[in-house]
Amino acid sequence: MENKIQKQAGSYSQNIQNVLQAIREDKFFLLYDSDKREGETDFVISATAVQPQDVKRMRKDGGGLICVAVAPKAAEIMKLPFMADVVSAAASNDKISPKLEIGTFAEKEGDISYDKKSSFSLWVNHRENKTGIPDNDRSYTIRRLGEMTKTALEKKSVNFASEFRTPGHTATLRAAAGLLDERRGQTELSVTLAMMAGTNPCMVVCEMLDDSSGKALSKEDAKKYGEENGLIFVEGWEVAEAFEIWKKTAADF
Amino acid sequence: MENKIQKQAGSYSQNIQNVLQAIREDKFFLLYDSDKREGETDFVISATAVQPQDVKRMRKDGGGLICVAVAPKAAEIMKLPFMADVVSAAASNDKISPKLEIGTFAEKEGDISYDKKSSFSLWVNHRENKTGIPDNDRSYTIRRLGEMTKTALEKKSVNFASEFRTPGHTATLRAAAGLLDERRGQTELSVTLAMMAGTNPCMVVCEMLDDSSGKALSKEDAKKYGEENGLIFVEGWEVAEAFEIWKKTAADF
Repeated sequence: MENKIQKQAGSYSQNIQNVLQAIREDKFFLLYDSDKREGETDFVISATAVQPQDVKRMRKDGGGLICVAVAPKAAEIMKLPFMADVVSAAASNDKISPKLEIGTFAEKEGDISYDKKSSFSLWVNHRENKTGIPDNDRSYTIRRLGEMTKTALEKKSVNFASEFRTPGHTATLRAAAGLLDERRGQTELSVTLAMMAGTNPCMVVCEMLDDSSGKALSKEDAKKYGEENGLIFVEGWEVAEAFEIWKKTAADF
Repeated sequence: MENKIQKQAGSYSQNIQNVLQAIREDKFFLLYDSDKREGETDFVISATAVQPQDVKRMRKDGGGLICVAVAPKAAEIMKLPFMADVVSAAASNDKISPKLEIGTFAEKEGDISYDKKSSFSLWVNHRENKTGIPDNDRSYTIRRLGEMTKTALEKKSVNFASEFRTPGHTATLRAAAGLLDERRGQTELSVTLAMMAGTNPCMVVCEMLDDSSGKALSKEDAKKYGEENGLIFVEGWEVAEAFEIWKKTAADF
């Protein structure tokens, strides 16, 4: 495994090699999807590494939602469903009285202009949290989600409910089964990078917002933030290029 | 209606009268629940008033989740369910294959140390949003949720799905049917204050976090922020006291 990763690494661009090294060193990096998609840059960091000051940095300097992206196989074992499927299943349950009339609320293909579906799964709190929102609480929930992802992939079975409950204050995201062959959101891009780095494929993402325009932070300003703060900036197309090399030898996702 | 509100207002404490005036003037105020509950202070403002700079203020100076609390009757008409019920209904739907094995994830009584249940409903985006997270998008979703609450209470029927889809980036909260007689979270406290003020009972709340301790902002520091920024600070027990006066003449919630 280690040899395969090293052999492939030689074919990756220098920027991708640097990102993979940053992931292995538990450092933040900045990930832009694409001009044709959201056009947003996210803070990204490995879930198991997240400390309270990292949550603070994301909420202060990012400002978006702090979400935990989980690799497809791990999400399957953890039994994390897509939220749109949860809402649809709830709405079509005839045994519930009164019936939940929310079938039409659930996202359908065509609802999102730049993608087929959103990657949102359940919002959770760790059971040891008090309210779930302060930096100490959220970073603990995030680290434990990272640890459970690791356990899920090692042992092929976990009891998600033993540690977490829903609803909560931290969003989980489920990466598409085909990774970048299927979807190219920050969810899949960040998880794919972790898999290419040979690290635990559970990553935290948080959108960077602009404080004056009311819009997402521009790509230029996100790059500038990266330069000023020593964080690598990487774009979706670079990850997609490396993915084509990596997937030739990847056993499965 | 107007006379009844004015007559009651004379019995309220000066601080409550000031808060009700702030709500009518579409201003932010600070709401602390109780030492025995979350022990958290939230920014609060009327949903229909929210502009992009208000979302920015909540994410920069608050740091928690930006949520929209809806009065019980309006939530009923808008068909906004409790998220815990959605997850339970999805899990017990036998027609779905593969079955969603998330029944044990759903919050049960006893899970939350300070309350019976959380008030979380669905996370939504307005259909006109692009990604749903920048300040322009979130403020638009919030204002439209406020407008739909108004319409729901006036016309007794709305088509929620015509404007919103789930999952999304703005959390909705459903106030308990019995308001403060049933639950005393920021959801019920903020909605009750709006009803006492005679304004639209759809309020935005966002927790204030401390930037150095990793905990919620202390009551003292939240008060200080209020003094320095000209925002009224009010506690749950003050609202509960006024609620006892108000509910004697309130037709229903």
